[in-house]
Amino acid sequence: MTVGARDGAPRQRRDARRNRELLLEAAHEVFTEQGLDAPLDVIARRAGVGNATLYRHFPTRAALVDAVFRDSLTGTMDAGERARKAPEAWAGLTAYLEVVFRTLAADRGSNDLMTTHLRGVESLEAVHGHNRRTVDALLSRLRDEGTVRADVTTEDVLFGLAALGRAVPALTAATAAPGATATPDSTTTDSTTTDSTATDSTATGSAPDAWRRPLALFLAGLRTAPAAGPLPAPALTAAELAEVLRELGPHRTRAGEREPGT
Amino acid sequence: MTVGARDGAPRQRRDARRNRELLLEAAHEVFTEQGLDAPLDVIARRAGVGNATLYRHFPTRAALVDAVFRDSLTGTMDAGERARKAPEAWAGLTAYLEVVFRTLAADRGSNDLMTTHLRGVESLEAVHGHNRRTVDALLSRLRDEGTVRADVTTEDVLFGLAALGRAVPALTAATAAPGATATPDSTTTDSTTTDSTATDSTATGSAPDAWRRPLALFLAGLRTAPAAGPLPAPALTAAELAEVLRELGPHRTRAGEREPGT
Repeated sequence: MTVGARDGAPRQRRDARRNRELLLEAAHEVFTEQGLDAPLDVIARRAGVGNATLYRHFPTRAALVDAVFRDSLTGTMDAGERARKAPEAWAGLTAYLEVVFRTLAADRGSNDLMTTHLRGVESLEAVHGHNRRTVDALLSRLRDEGTVRADVTTEDVLFGLAALGRAVPALTAATAAPGATATPDSTTTDSTTTDSTATDSTATGSAPDAWRRPLALFLAGLRTAPAAGPLPAPALTAAELAEVLRELGPHRTRAGEREPGT
Repeated sequence: MTVGARDGAPRQRRDARRNRELLLEAAHEVFTEQGLDAPLDVIARRAGVGNATLYRHFPTRAALVDAVFRDSLTGTMDAGERARKAPEAWAGLTAYLEVVFRTLAADRGSNDLMTTHLRGVESLEAVHGHNRRTVDALLSRLRDEGTVRADVTTEDVLFGLAALGRAVPALTAATAAPGATATPDSTTTDSTTTDSTATDSTATGSAPDAWRRPLALFLAGLRTAPAAGPLPAPALTAAELAEVLRELGPHRTRAGEREPGT
């Protein structure tokens, strides 16, 4: 073995490790901004590497998604474990869903992951199965207590959470500072909410917990008796709702999609 | 005036009328299948006319959307009028939302229209305003009765309906005959629901009213006391829910969109 080869191999390994880190950072940013169907070449470009390097490290989109979100999905599963052991089942379910929805609201990549099924993403299969078992276990405790409607199934809860979860990023964007999301020709955004820290599309806005209110209403619908206490978080204004509906709209295109005609 | 000119002008008017009808039919089909951001050239092609003819009749997408959906939106507004006058406010609200959700489930174009805001579509501005006033009027009656939570706002109801409404087409597609929606490599679609009439993506499937159940749960959450009676429509199976989550997913691309990498 020559001295050159001894020096070269560690450097190659260091470079490879560095590229992998750059790719994971860039992928996390791009998935968070654009969702899991973001173009892979945008990720390579942001990491400052070529497409070939990306494919060498992550041969499939699923492998990249898996590597990027493994830690955050593990965090969600830990929250699920705690919830199953909570002394009070409703409090456990609510605390768990608060962890889930905080992520759903702030991060489009995690939102895509948690509210949809993607084939071949290993950590995702695990978190979906775990989520289902958490909801299942807590519903079963609530059923034993008689505090949840007897005819509510795990699928009812999971569908409701997915439907709500998919809409939550629009809620977050629309309740952020108007400047962060309003389009230049917007005339109805007269929201008075402002947050000088909300400067990009992933900002959580001045009402980062706007999701609390629809989540509380959804959970209330499952109960055999009304929950005590008022709804959390302020109600949307009419102008904020209009902005949410615009954000939900089919005319909001993401990077890489065809811009529809007018 | 020559005989030729007298014959020519009516024929031109007849042809123009015929083209307009063909365009409206084609646009209705394509919007229903693909949503309101469907490519306009697909519509011209299906109508058998050139793009120039489409633009001559409908200079903007908004004008075309308006012409296609005006009748159906008028029908929704009529249902709203009836609901406001219903002797029993909960029954009125439920009957109205059943009209709305039946359309949301079956027709992607109407779904886009009703759950989002599109600028410049005249009939849509009318229906959104009307919908808001219908919900407002019924909530106010329910508040007077004391049967709806006092802290529920019109915006809470409209946001919940939009979130649910956006998810309903996935529910419809996933509960249709498996052959109609399952992808070739699907291994988890072991649903036993079958419907020989469900042969295309707009079919309402064997569970055309799967939306009734989440809608009932949503409305239950607004009440001060639990509603009487069990949840309507059968619960989703685990396999159906998996299919719904796949349908909701970011990886389902529509015509004209970039197919994401793997």
